[in-house]
Amino acid sequence: MDKCEKWGSYELTLNGPSDGNPFIDNNLFATFTHDNFSIKIRGFYDGNGIYKVRYMPELIGTWKVTTESNVEVLSNKTTEFECTSPSEDNHGPVRVSGKTHFAYADGTSYMPFGTTAYAWVFQSNERQKQTLKTLSENKFNKLRMLTFPKNYNYNTIEPDIYPYEGAPKKVSDTFDFNSWSLKPEDIGFDFSKINPTYFQHLENRIKDLDNLGVEADLILFHPYDHWGFARMGEKYDKLYLKYIIARLASYKNIWWSLANEYDLLAMAGQKPLEAWDKLGELVKEEDPSEHLISIHNWYDPPTNKGTRKNWFDYTKPWITHLSVQTDELFFVPQWLEKYQKPVVVDECRYEGNIELGWGDNTAHGMMDCFYRTVLRGGYATHGETYIDKPNTKRSIWWAHGGILYGQSQKRINFFKDLLDNNGFNYVKPMATEGPHWELAVGQSPDDSKIIAYFGANQPEFEQFDFLPKDKKYSAKLIDTWNMTTKDLNIEINNTDMFQLPRSEYQALLLTEKK
Amino acid sequence: MDKCEKWGSYELTLNGPSDGNPFIDNNLFATFTHDNFSIKIRGFYDGNGIYKVRYMPELIGTWKVTTESNVEVLSNKTTEFECTSPSEDNHGPVRVSGKTHFAYADGTSYMPFGTTAYAWVFQSNERQKQTLKTLSENKFNKLRMLTFPKNYNYNTIEPDIYPYEGAPKKVSDTFDFNSWSLKPEDIGFDFSKINPTYFQHLENRIKDLDNLGVEADLILFHPYDHWGFARMGEKYDKLYLKYIIARLASYKNIWWSLANEYDLLAMAGQKPLEAWDKLGELVKEEDPSEHLISIHNWYDPPTNKGTRKNWFDYTKPWITHLSVQTDELFFVPQWLEKYQKPVVVDECRYEGNIELGWGDNTAHGMMDCFYRTVLRGGYATHGETYIDKPNTKRSIWWAHGGILYGQSQKRINFFKDLLDNNGFNYVKPMATEGPHWELAVGQSPDDSKIIAYFGANQPEFEQFDFLPKDKKYSAKLIDTWNMTTKDLNIEINNTDMFQLPRSEYQALLLTEKK
Repeated sequence: MDKCEKWGSYELTLNGPSDGNPFIDNNLFATFTHDNFSIKIRGFYDGNGIYKVRYMPELIGTWKVTTESNVEVLSNKTTEFECTSPSEDNHGPVRVSGKTHFAYADGTSYMPFGTTAYAWVFQSNERQKQTLKTLSENKFNKLRMLTFPKNYNYNTIEPDIYPYEGAPKKVSDTFDFNSWSLKPEDIGFDFSKINPTYFQHLENRIKDLDNLGVEADLILFHPYDHWGFARMGEKYDKLYLKYIIARLASYKNIWWSLANEYDLLAMAGQKPLEAWDKLGELVKEEDPSEHLISIHNWYDPPTNKGTRKNWFDYTKPWITHLSVQTDELFFVPQWLEKYQKPVVVDECRYEGNIELGWGDNTAHGMMDCFYRTVLRGGYATHGETYIDKPNTKRSIWWAHGGILYGQSQKRINFFKDLLDNNGFNYVKPMATEGPHWELAVGQSPDDSKIIAYFGANQPEFEQFDFLPKDKKYSAKLIDTWNMTTKDLNIEINNTDMFQLPRSEYQALLLTEKK
Repeated sequence: MDKCEKWGSYELTLNGPSDGNPFIDNNLFATFTHDNFSIKIRGFYDGNGIYKVRYMPELIGTWKVTTESNVEVLSNKTTEFECTSPSEDNHGPVRVSGKTHFAYADGTSYMPFGTTAYAWVFQSNERQKQTLKTLSENKFNKLRMLTFPKNYNYNTIEPDIYPYEGAPKKVSDTFDFNSWSLKPEDIGFDFSKINPTYFQHLENRIKDLDNLGVEADLILFHPYDHWGFARMGEKYDKLYLKYIIARLASYKNIWWSLANEYDLLAMAGQKPLEAWDKLGELVKEEDPSEHLISIHNWYDPPTNKGTRKNWFDYTKPWITHLSVQTDELFFVPQWLEKYQKPVVVDECRYEGNIELGWGDNTAHGMMDCFYRTVLRGGYATHGETYIDKPNTKRSIWWAHGGILYGQSQKRINFFKDLLDNNGFNYVKPMATEGPHWELAVGQSPDDSKIIAYFGANQPEFEQFDFLPKDKKYSAKLIDTWNMTTKDLNIEINNTDMFQLPRSEYQALLLTEKK
């Protein structure tokens, strides 16, 4: 009997017809049964007459599989497989834990420390290997990446293969925003004819990430498009979603990011807000493994002006967590309270030197975003946008992956270690009532450790009146930039003032004295 | 005939009774008439049987003055004086100009570059002289200061004299927030008996500021009080306001700041929001010279959470401009648009090293606040909070005046000169649609010059797509921190990318090529 470990990807392969349009004409489902539990899963066509159904089993023991199809040769096939205990490194998919945090399905702690390489799978093999190597050398455990190719500043090279049959009618070496306003007659692809080779390639990269312990935060739609994939219309949007979910949902490291900067797509007229909502519901409905789902904004959060456009209603039941773009980090505690879901600040300005404000942050600024967000109970995502010259052909991590040239990633690694080594399975935010420039403070789940981060502030004297009364703490001074830790010979409590070096980017690690 | 220059302070002095309570029992008004214009002004009792009426004439020529009073000896007195042309340095009071900016009454440009020394008039004579010397050595042209004494962290020494007859019942050398929650039985002052000596002293310091060309942004109420002046009740609040306005409104450099951190007072139950509104209307009604009036918050501006407390309705007709505390500077353009009044960010975190988040900003941060606010069309105010040790007795500029120990004031002076020397009588904000971390850009009134500030961002490559099409500019690189200016041999336009040093705190000064 076949075997598949718990949270592994079980795959049933069948041969069937390759004539006509198998993506449209033929359907395939399989019902997976374990004792009293049973679930019906959509299959997909993988080209060359090959049909597949995949499933990530979560119950150990024997599973029975029975197919149904509108094609006789694919229908009423039965098989069985044995779901075995997961191997040591397999903790299952990441899910929401305790309302506002995450954990692997087996309960192991998971705090997303993400990075961004949108178009890395469309680069040369050598570059893709380089990307995986860079990831293996850093602590990032989530990667934001696109399923469709990308057309944008610094990313104008056409991909080798396309997700659909056809060819682009208009391409250009130089980037122009107007190219996104594609007319129907300029679309050269047949959205009913999916290219399995394209998706096989994407799938292999997702497996590579899983081997490194990196979650694939997969962006299903995005506006950086001059081919038409951003404006396929409801019918083909749904065909695509059903296809990609059938293909990928059995991989435990998948997160669905319905769209990047949906509000730019919305503006361009391709998809109104209601359309996103329906597509989000479809993703939730189609995915048998209940992966995380979110949607990512371009515009700032609404303020008292009240006219910021199209801020998504994150209370929608299909949305598992917030995936936001902002560096107004004082919103994080407010959103945690309001939405009662995890908050991931997936863009808070990348370290880099480009002409665009979201990509000219300093390494200090990028590091600062991680400390301020995470200690307030949210999560942050890194990106890097260094170029040598305008219209550079050099790889830029944010778009192409490759090599990191910056200085923030080391500090982010250091911060991750600091949390991991001090029992922060997640962070309980403290002292979040003040304005956003106040220090950011987080507590370990067992309350025994506290990290207080001062950012670019320079307090030489401090008093931690937010500490619980009657508790005393020893303190280590953390230089977050130089990544050093020094025991301080002081006892810190709720009332007494203490002295620090007058310096920027310091933090204190407090340990309760018992 | 007496003479008084235009925008000078004309004073009529009369002798009258000193028995009973002259502040309550006796009133005095004078009607000032110039041709067809006539205005009735309240007088005040200055102690020792001396009564005064003051007025700041704004029409050149002969004025007739006639008194009325419920005391016969003060009533029906008449006199005349000649209002002459103002002397060279006298530009009159500052008023709102062009909806969102300021100018002196004679049209001369005035951009408030403020600083803060709340309790400077309550310090030793030597310290007061030091404060005036420091002001004379810097470019600050507005000073935020209190009329009532101050009880707060680092400011616990009792003043030599009090504004009312009586003595405090409870004083302490150490500061405790609870001391503000004063019970009526612990108040040792008679609010019906004003101490003219106290106000004469205050008045002399305001004249000293005028001699230096510094506007006195006079805070009429504040919560830092353990004497009872913050909770006198409506009757004595009104008595006080009428008295201080009668006494001071003839000085051209007066601004009324109805309260500092009114929302802390409101919280403590002393004054609800509606009470402030009534008092604000009274100030406007009593002041014959229409000085600027505002009120200053403690709490952050409201955000989408919607529960921030007590944000004032700045549309109220008695409010001439916003006087806000925030470092969420992206609000500035929104407020300009919403309220159509000048926006002064009177607190955006002071340079210093104290334990309180609003007082541990770096010099870079303090400077940054000026560039970001002013180039977005608002105005900013400086403060400095450096201490040597906790509970220091050293003077702290923010509270006591004295000496500046910081590094931001030189950079702020440099910025003021940069604006003055390049025709920025005020700043027309440009490119304010983006998020708050985008570069801050302001244009001179005649459009010929533009300053673009990058703050802590590090763009090495830039493209100024917000520039008008078809215009070309020469550029100077400003190092705002090192206060240097360097001609760049480049031409900047709407479309072409250009290169800068990858460095923080840079700005560009563009000059249109004709």
